[in-house]
Amino acid sequence: MDPIERLSLLFERFPGIGPRQAQRFVQYLLRSSPTLRRELADGVRALSSTIHQCPQCMRYHASDNATCNFCSDAGRDQSLLAVLSSDADLLALERSHTYHGMYFVLGGLIHLASEKTKGLRLRELKSRAKQPGLQEIVIAFPANPEGDATTSIVRDELSGIGPRITTLGRGLSTGSELEYADPETLRSALDNRK
Amino acid sequence: MDPIERLSLLFERFPGIGPRQAQRFVQYLLRSSPTLRRELADGVRALSSTIHQCPQCMRYHASDNATCNFCSDAGRDQSLLAVLSSDADLLALERSHTYHGMYFVLGGLIHLASEKTKGLRLRELKSRAKQPGLQEIVIAFPANPEGDATTSIVRDELSGIGPRITTLGRGLSTGSELEYADPETLRSALDNRK
Amino acid sequence: MDPIERLSLLFERFPGIGPRQAQRFVQYLLRSSPTLRRELADGVRALSSTIHQCPQCMRYHASDNATCNFCSDAGRDQSLLAVLSSDADLLALERSHTYHGMYFVLGGLIHLASEKTKGLRLRELKSRAKQPGLQEIVIAFPANPEGDATTSIVRDELSGIGPRITTLGRGLSTGSELEYADPETLRSALDNRK
Amino acid sequence: MDPIERLSLLFERFPGIGPRQAQRFVQYLLRSSPTLRRELADGVRALSSTIHQCPQCMRYHASDNATCNFCSDAGRDQSLLAVLSSDADLLALERSHTYHGMYFVLGGLIHLASEKTKGLRLRELKSRAKQPGLQEIVIAFPANPEGDATTSIVRDELSGIGPRITTLGRGLSTGSELEYADPETLRSALDNRK
Repeated sequence: MDPIERLSLLFERFPGIGPRQAQRFVQYLLRSSPTLRRELADGVRALSSTIHQCPQCMRYHASDNATCNFCSDAGRDQSLLAVLSSDADLLALERSHTYHGMYFVLGGLIHLASEKTKGLRLRELKSRAKQPGLQEIVIAFPANPEGDATTSIVRDELSGIGPRITTLGRGLSTGSELEYADPETLRSALDNRK
Repeated sequence: MDPIERLSLLFERFPGIGPRQAQRFVQYLLRSSPTLRRELADGVRALSSTIHQCPQCMRYHASDNATCNFCSDAGRDQSLLAVLSSDADLLALERSHTYHGMYFVLGGLIHLASEKTKGLRLRELKSRAKQPGLQEIVIAFPANPEGDATTSIVRDELSGIGPRITTLGRGLSTGSELEYADPETLRSALDNRK
Repeated sequence: MDPIERLSLLFERFPGIGPRQAQRFVQYLLRSSPTLRRELADGVRALSSTIHQCPQCMRYHASDNATCNFCSDAGRDQSLLAVLSSDADLLALERSHTYHGMYFVLGGLIHLASEKTKGLRLRELKSRAKQPGLQEIVIAFPANPEGDATTSIVRDELSGIGPRITTLGRGLSTGSELEYADPETLRSALDNRK
Repeated sequence: MDPIERLSLLFERFPGIGPRQAQRFVQYLLRSSPTLRRELADGVRALSSTIHQCPQCMRYHASDNATCNFCSDAGRDQSLLAVLSSDADLLALERSHTYHGMYFVLGGLIHLASEKTKGLRLRELKSRAKQPGLQEIVIAFPANPEGDATTSIVRDELSGIGPRITTLGRGLSTGSELEYADPETLRSALDNRK
């Protein structure tokens, strides 16, 4: 196959990228300097050699230590563990400067049609939940059906282990208009009024 | 002025309607039957003669009694009063079947640039808040800067009158993704975890 | 039925208006002055008494004469007739200041599923096409399947009457990008190159 | 810098990609197999070694010959040359199966603010226009201000060389509605009626 076409097909597998934008990526690279192309190729290769998974929170990181910066930071609250769906959600929560506990990345959400939990790090989560010193596990999944279904599975898996299990509060989020809010959100907003 | 143009200008003043759609409304009426046009004209006129404002909650209604259906319903919780920005928000909350207290419509939100409270029924709200039997007033404005500024004005006005003042809970609303949530929403979601 | 609800249902029949915006229209009218409501009701009523259809071009107008301003303007090119789908298309073409001939409004396009021509003024168009002095009829329908199907019906109806039948030229329209243009448009753009 | 961050910054330079999607690309690659990452790195590298520019039409291609498939195809109409802005536009025109002449890629459009023609292959185009056998050059740029300004520059550069210079026809493009068409498009549609 034509190298242009072959590369275009690889870009089509990127999240959110269709054939047209994949082709545009290749055209962009063709017009770029050989140096930039080499940097990109090296950067992609470097993921395999320099990136590893933190054995504590399971996120990918490039720290020289096996354990990532967050998990090896003694200043964080070791008694609180947030369980997140993805590295991206972890980074979003960290960026908000509102959370100072520990993290665990489950690696996805349950697929509702198939109810498959394949690829979810449930075994690793259970083992992490048993570590001493943990007092609360806050399940922090998105507020959608996949998130809710995965929350209920995680709750089942963790029940009886010890730490208190909580979930993120629901209510109006910034920008919510009452007129367009769904009944579930209004109910939570009323229940959580204060 | 041409009656087509004059009517089009009136439709342009409707919320969310620009010149093009206003013209389309007139064309639609031109193609409609005289009966439909008469029904519409009568319907608009009927608002003046049959609709009145409830002296309790201030919303517009067509009940034969001065007081509206909700305010005259003895089955509702008389100790709880929700303060809303508009009739539309009141109807949205009612449709959600999650609230069974009383209502009060403030008639708008503060305009942030001018800080004008003109048109807001603050005096009527104070007087309503003094009615006996009220134990809690839940301020239920949209989760945006105008809503927040109006909440703080309403809190000031009502302070010391007696009933407990609460506001709707914040957090993830249905469909919220952590990755796109703002820090304020994440903070509330963490604070309200349970 | 409640007058608010009844009026809301009438607004829902307006083109492009759903239940929510229809309700917002009623709320807007409730908050408006009785004067504005009376003006609107009168304006709607006035359509029945002051607006009539031009017997030449069939569009709705408010001129005191039976014949509309365009059709009674001796300065326009009487040898050229544009056939349009709607009053709105006629006004758009007039606003562009690119056309100085006469007009005829067909009153719609064929419905592709049913192939119904009911409501289309085909008989009136034929009779108009036979008026002396006409040398060219330009069919000016939108460039979509309904427009194309109606063009072919109108061509059939008018064939043999006398005036030359033309249709609007196709090609790139302002803002068109080659990369996103469909083959039909590219073919026309190539055919019409100059 | 962190390899994740460094790669993310490279993806941010891709056309249409912001920081968030760039990060998502990296996360996708982290979750992918080492094999896919190697394929992608090799594919990017391969552009430098296997892709070259056709000396006739200036597009990038992977054919073993210096000259690309289109330019070396004796079956194409050698008397007609289409001048396009980009490889993507060339491929779009080819895909439409409406053009069977030769191609030339200018490599961009004039930047309106700066009026810079840097990077445009004007010298190469002039030299290509002088090749014997050419009878017509059709300038096929997008129908926008940049395209129009570049058309006028290309016309100037090519004037007096010999071949007839044409541009793509304007008019209604597929899907155009008269009501929303701009005056320029309506004028062209009227001028090109047939």
